[in-house]
Parts: sequence; structure tokens; C-alpha cells
Amino acid sequence: MSKNIFYAQSGGVTAVINATACGVIETARKHKRKVGKVYAGLNGIVGALNEELIDTSKESAQAISALRYTPGGAFGSCRYKMKSVEENRDEYEKLIRVFKKYNIGYFFYNGGGDSQDTANKIAEFSKKSGYPLTCIGIPKTIDNDLPFTDSCPGFGSVAKYVAVSIREAGFDIASMAKTSTKVFVMEVMGRHAGWIAAAAGVAAEKAGDDPHIILLPEVVFDETKFLEKVKSCVERYDYCTIVVSEGVKDTEGKFLSDSGLKDAFGHAQLGGVAPVIANLVKNKLGYKYHWAVCDYLQRAARHIASKVDVDQAYALGKAAVEYGLKGENAIMPIIVRKKTKTYSWKIDKVKLSQVANVEKFMPKNFITKDGFGITKACRNYILPLIQGEDYPPYKNGLPVYVKLKKSLVSKKITIK
Amino acid sequence: MSKNIFYAQSGGVTAVINATACGVIETARKHKRKVGKVYAGLNGIVGALNEELIDTSKESAQAISALRYTPGGAFGSCRYKMKSVEENRDEYEKLIRVFKKYNIGYFFYNGGGDSQDTANKIAEFSKKSGYPLTCIGIPKTIDNDLPFTDSCPGFGSVAKYVAVSIREAGFDIASMAKTSTKVFVMEVMGRHAGWIAAAAGVAAEKAGDDPHIILLPEVVFDETKFLEKVKSCVERYDYCTIVVSEGVKDTEGKFLSDSGLKDAFGHAQLGGVAPVIANLVKNKLGYKYHWAVCDYLQRAARHIASKVDVDQAYALGKAAVEYGLKGENAIMPIIVRKKTKTYSWKIDKVKLSQVANVEKFMPKNFITKDGFGITKACRNYILPLIQGEDYPPYKNGLPVYVKLKKSLVSKKITIK
Repeated sequence: MSKNIFYAQSGGVTAVINATACGVIETARKHKRKVGKVYAGLNGIVGALNEELIDTSKESAQAISALRYTPGGAFGSCRYKMKSVEENRDEYEKLIRVFKKYNIGYFFYNGGGDSQDTANKIAEFSKKSGYPLTCIGIPKTIDNDLPFTDSCPGFGSVAKYVAVSIREAGFDIASMAKTSTKVFVMEVMGRHAGWIAAAAGVAAEKAGDDPHIILLPEVVFDETKFLEKVKSCVERYDYCTIVVSEGVKDTEGKFLSDSGLKDAFGHAQLGGVAPVIANLVKNKLGYKYHWAVCDYLQRAARHIASKVDVDQAYALGKAAVEYGLKGENAIMPIIVRKKTKTYSWKIDKVKLSQVANVEKFMPKNFITKDGFGITKACRNYILPLIQGEDYPPYKNGLPVYVKLKKSLVSKKITIK
Repeated sequence: MSKNIFYAQSGGVTAVINATACGVIETARKHKRKVGKVYAGLNGIVGALNEELIDTSKESAQAISALRYTPGGAFGSCRYKMKSVEENRDEYEKLIRVFKKYNIGYFFYNGGGDSQDTANKIAEFSKKSGYPLTCIGIPKTIDNDLPFTDSCPGFGSVAKYVAVSIREAGFDIASMAKTSTKVFVMEVMGRHAGWIAAAAGVAAEKAGDDPHIILLPEVVFDETKFLEKVKSCVERYDYCTIVVSEGVKDTEGKFLSDSGLKDAFGHAQLGGVAPVIANLVKNKLGYKYHWAVCDYLQRAARHIASKVDVDQAYALGKAAVEYGLKGENAIMPIIVRKKTKTYSWKIDKVKLSQVANVEKFMPKNFITKDGFGITKACRNYILPLIQGEDYPPYKNGLPVYVKLKKSLVSKKITIK
């Protein structure tokens, strides 16, 4: 009897994680002789631990195909990091017990750095316990911080969203700057690395284009230099557009967003670095401002996803299944940028043990000397990742996204 | 010698105000025998008052055609309301002097309620002063509050943006609600009327669809009822998505966004009702939350504009020129919804004197009894306005929007 697959989505979802799921399931369905069912964990890995397995064979080909253009995590995702085997052997044993019961021979874990680490731990544990399990990590993260892979599915689409958004907002503000708003602040995600904020920078093709200033978590916030830059932009261009990463910190290493905002009842006001920056500009320079916080909209914006990103997300899901069927184990398929004149890419793989606990930071030469912009090298890296539009179908003026049936299999293990 | 046109953009810009400009200029160019040049005011009506006239004949056909898909106000807009003739006769005389000097026989004023009022005043003044001037107001406002016209250009595209955005964000939050964010708050524009927040409601096709709660400025914010509703949504759906209009007020008639947020220095924190709502939910119900503020992104989002909206914006610009050439004066072209089974529309006109100082509010029967949603009647009204996608062209992964040359004519009047 051919072995089944267990697929789980992990961590913060993206506009294209379901495209990876689509790649996994469609590819598995093409290899029905070699592989059995694809079970998906309800809400990620906890679905396996709680024995809540979605039987994807109950979903129509049409529904699975629609995953390619549906944002969010169709099977549910979770932020749940399994501890080490030493700390929590029970959990690993429970997992293997469930896998055994459902004849699961393949575990595909679709997530960021932590998930790759978990996939690796499970690979090692299953090997030691003598249970034959193919463990493959599939990259996913808008943070773009996984090593080895040239790009991470999810990032290209956020990048496109923020670049398009700041370009559009810039046209708006430029129209009215003479008599109205002078400074616009757009907050984007990125608590540790500035990839997303940097991506907004690709919208600026020449001097004066939006955004005028990018505030990255890699650069300690220097109030004086920042205010000088804002002033000089307003003097030169009549207005100033600023993209700020949520992770920007002050000289003491404190998040600017935690800078003491309190509501009327004295409760700390959580989140939102954009209003902090906007207020600073208002109080020190007196300019009229507006601010936006993209929050989840940026990572859910499937309507403006990057085609390259969608294609890579799908291809990595497909590759995971193909590698698994070829007998590869404890690996993560990756995107390799080919050395061609125009951008092209291919799939390769790395060992999970190499990926685990390594973070990819923005190279120093991606940030301009003044710390407020991106270099040509950064542009050349990011721009290919936002190429192409991959519009979802629309009905009644709205994108048609699929909600799956998510049929759970009846539990077979009585003892928890 | 045929008379010239003066066209000005007024008030907050939209994703489609340039489509109207495109309609005006392309139509004028088709009637070269009857009409001369189209001058546009640099930054709106103040361009005429300051004698800063853009000669649109210097722009290529291609550039003008690109206005159809370029957001913002290509000639610049302003928030500038001319006082009454009694209060500021000088300004009116200055305007007529400029019009005379540039042989302007047509004044097209593209704006909201205030601008229609101004257009009407100028029509009356020019008549009294014996200067033959055709004054036509062209509707534009994301606020959708102009009377007589079934819809206002700009609104349909904002409506589409907010409906698409909350649907997408809903898919994201639903994926992770079991272990992460339970409540998501999205703030949209609308200080006086809830049209935009209501528009987000069309994304909800059946019970449980996003958004779960809409907070409208028409409904006094009732904290207890609101918190009960949030709790019941979380209990029923695992999460709760909320769209809040910036104009929501408390029982004392105070904007919720002004509810006393202060930064670390004790400065009042301006704007942002979303964090206020989110904080309230956190403090009273303890749910993990996220919030987004769309701000200018919503009215600049040409990438997801409604085709119906773009078509109407263009058609109204075209109609303004055609009415003008037919000798109509002191009117505003409007959109009339035809009494057909499927939505269709035509252009008609109303007298400016009827439009001036009349605001269109949301009918009471558009709001559900509990005050947190929209009715079928509201849905039937809004849904046709977001139909169709009208994607701009892309290059290098980004929309290609046009920046005009904006060649100013040399000033002819020396005395200010």
C-alpha cells in the first residue's frame, strides 16, 4: 500500500501559501500509483498532534485548483514551535503514533525558519525511532529571511503590494501637497529585517519618486537626521513619502512603536509606528500629515500578487512531492537565481540541517549610506520578484476565493 | 475665434478623477472646430486665481490617454472654498479677468459639494458681470454624498478596494484564529457619512462572511452592544473582522479617534480610530488583535479600480464638454441608474443651483436594525458600482502611471 502524505501550514500566512498547497496536492494526485492520500493538518502541526486531519481527497479538483489564487491558509495555520526532543519526547512520539496510524510516509512542512527546524527535528526523531518518514520543509515567509533560497514565497507578493501602494499614494499626495498633506507615512511589516520596507523602495525609479524615505530596522533611528531629511524632501519636492518598518528601533534598542503611547485610560497603546513617526514630524516640523498601517492587508493582498511569487510557491510545493517520491529526505527545496541576463530561476534543494536556525539578513550593501534608502544592488535583487500580475477570477466585482470543506477524518486513536 | 476651456480639479483626489480629466480633454480635442484649448488650473481653482494655467495642448495624446488609469490629480488639486461674492468680490473679479485674458468660455469644475457650490456662484457672477461663461460642475467624491447623481466618481473604486481588502484580510485571520489574532479592525475614510464603511459590507455574501461588524458614523457608538457583538462573533466564528469609519462618534458626539490618545511627551495623538477600537477590545475582552488604517491607499488604489467607476468618471467628463458645446450652463452632469433588471446607467443633468449645499446621506433602510451591518437594499445599491476590473498597464512589475509636463503658460496679467 502506498504511503500517505501529511501536509501542514505553519506560522503567519501569505497571499501564496495556498499556491504551495495546490502544488503539493495536484502533484500528489498526478502520482496516484506511488502515493496515497494527502492529509492536511487542521491549523498546522497541531492538527497532527490533536489528530485533526483534513482529508484533501474530499475536495474537488476545482477547489484544489482555486487554492492557487486564494490568500490565507486554507487548512489553518498556527504559531506553534515544537520543543526539542529532550524537552518534550511525548509530543514527538504522539506525532509518530498518528503518522503510523494514518500510514503517513511523507511529511511536508510549509513554513519559515522555525518550521524548517521542526521538520529537521522530526526527521531525526523518526529516523532514530525506526519509523520511515520522508520529511521535507517547504519555504514560506513574507519576511524573506530563509537562507539558501534566493527568495521566499510570500515575499514577492508583499513586495509588490507595498511598492504599488506607495507609488499610488505618492500620486495622491503630490496632487495636493501645495495646500494640504505634506508628509505621508506608510507602515509595513518586518520586525527583524527590513526586506518589506526595502521592497517599497523599488517603486522609486528616479530621484524624487516615491517613497522618499525608508526606515529600516537595520538602521538605528536617528531623529535629527530623519527630520533633516524630511525637511529637505518637503523643500525639494513639496512633500515627503515615508515607508517605515514596524521593527524600527531607537538608540536604546527599543521599538519606536512602543514609545509610550497611552490611551485615555492610561493603557499602553500597542503597535503602530506610523502614528509615532507622523506625530514626531508634526510636533518638530509642523507639517500636515497622514499615515496608513498596512498590517494584514499587505500579506493577504492576493489581488495584486506577483506572478513570479505565485509560480515559485507552486513550484516549491510540486518539487517537495517530486523530491519525496525520488527518496530525498530531510531537505528543503529552494529557489536558485540563474546567472542569466534577464531574471530566471530553477529549483534546487538543501539539507534541513543546514537551514535550521540560520537567518538571512539584508546585506549591508543593500542600504544607502545615509540609511534612508536602498541601493541599486537591492533593487536588482528585489525587482525580479514582483514581476507579472496573477489576477484571481472575479465575480460580482469581488475576487472569488475558495473555502474548502475541510472534512476531518474520524479519529482512530482513543488515548490522547 | 472659438473659446477655450478652463478645467480644475478640486478637493480630495481619487483613483479616477484623472479619468474625468481624460474625458474632458479627449472630447475637447475631438471638437477642435468648436472649442479652443483646454487649460487646467495648477492645483485647482487657485491656478486660475494665481494665473498658473497648464496648457494641456502640450501633452501628447498618449499622455492624456494615460490619465484614464492614473490615480491622484494630474494637474494638482486643492482644498480652497471661494467665499461668497459679498465677502470677496475681488476674487471673483480676478477670476473673470483671467478668464477674459485667456479667452475662456467654459469653466469645468471637477469636485464635490463645495465645488459645485463654487461653480454655481461663478456662473451667477459671470452672468451678472456680463461675461459669457459656461459653468459646468463635474461630480467627484469618494464620499458619495452629492445629491441627484446615483453615484459619485471615486466612490466605486474605494468601495471595491475596501471590500476586496476586508475579504482578503478575513481569509488571513480565519486561518490563524485558533492560536493567534482573534479580532481585526480596518479603518476606512468617511467623516460624515458611512458610505465607504458600508461598501466593505458587500464582501459579506452570507452569514459569517467578512466583515462581521461595520461601525458607521450614522450610528452612535454603543460600547456595550459593540463588545457583546464582538464576543458573539468570536464565539461563533472563532474570530471577528470589523470595519470602522473614521467618523464614528461616541454618545457625546465626539469622534472616537479623538479619545485622548497621548504620546510619551503628552502630545495629543491625532487620528486613528482603529487602534482605539482594537485597544478597547483588548482591554475589555482580552482578545489578541491587529488593526490596519487604509488612509490614502484606499482612494489612490487605481490598481483595483472599479470599471464601472472609471467608465462613469470618463463619461461625466465627456458629457460636461458636450453639454457645454450644446449651450447648457450652470449644470452638473449626473449618473442615472436605469430601471433595468441588470444594472445600467445613463447620463443626465441637474441645475447647479439645485445641487449646491445639499448632501446625500445613507438612507436609514440601508443600515441593519442592530446598527452593525448593511441591508439588502444597501447591497443592491452599492454592488453594481464595484463591477468590473480596469487594470492599469504594468512595466517592471509596477503600474505605469503618467506624470504630465504641466507646461504653464506665460503670465499675461502683470498686476495681481
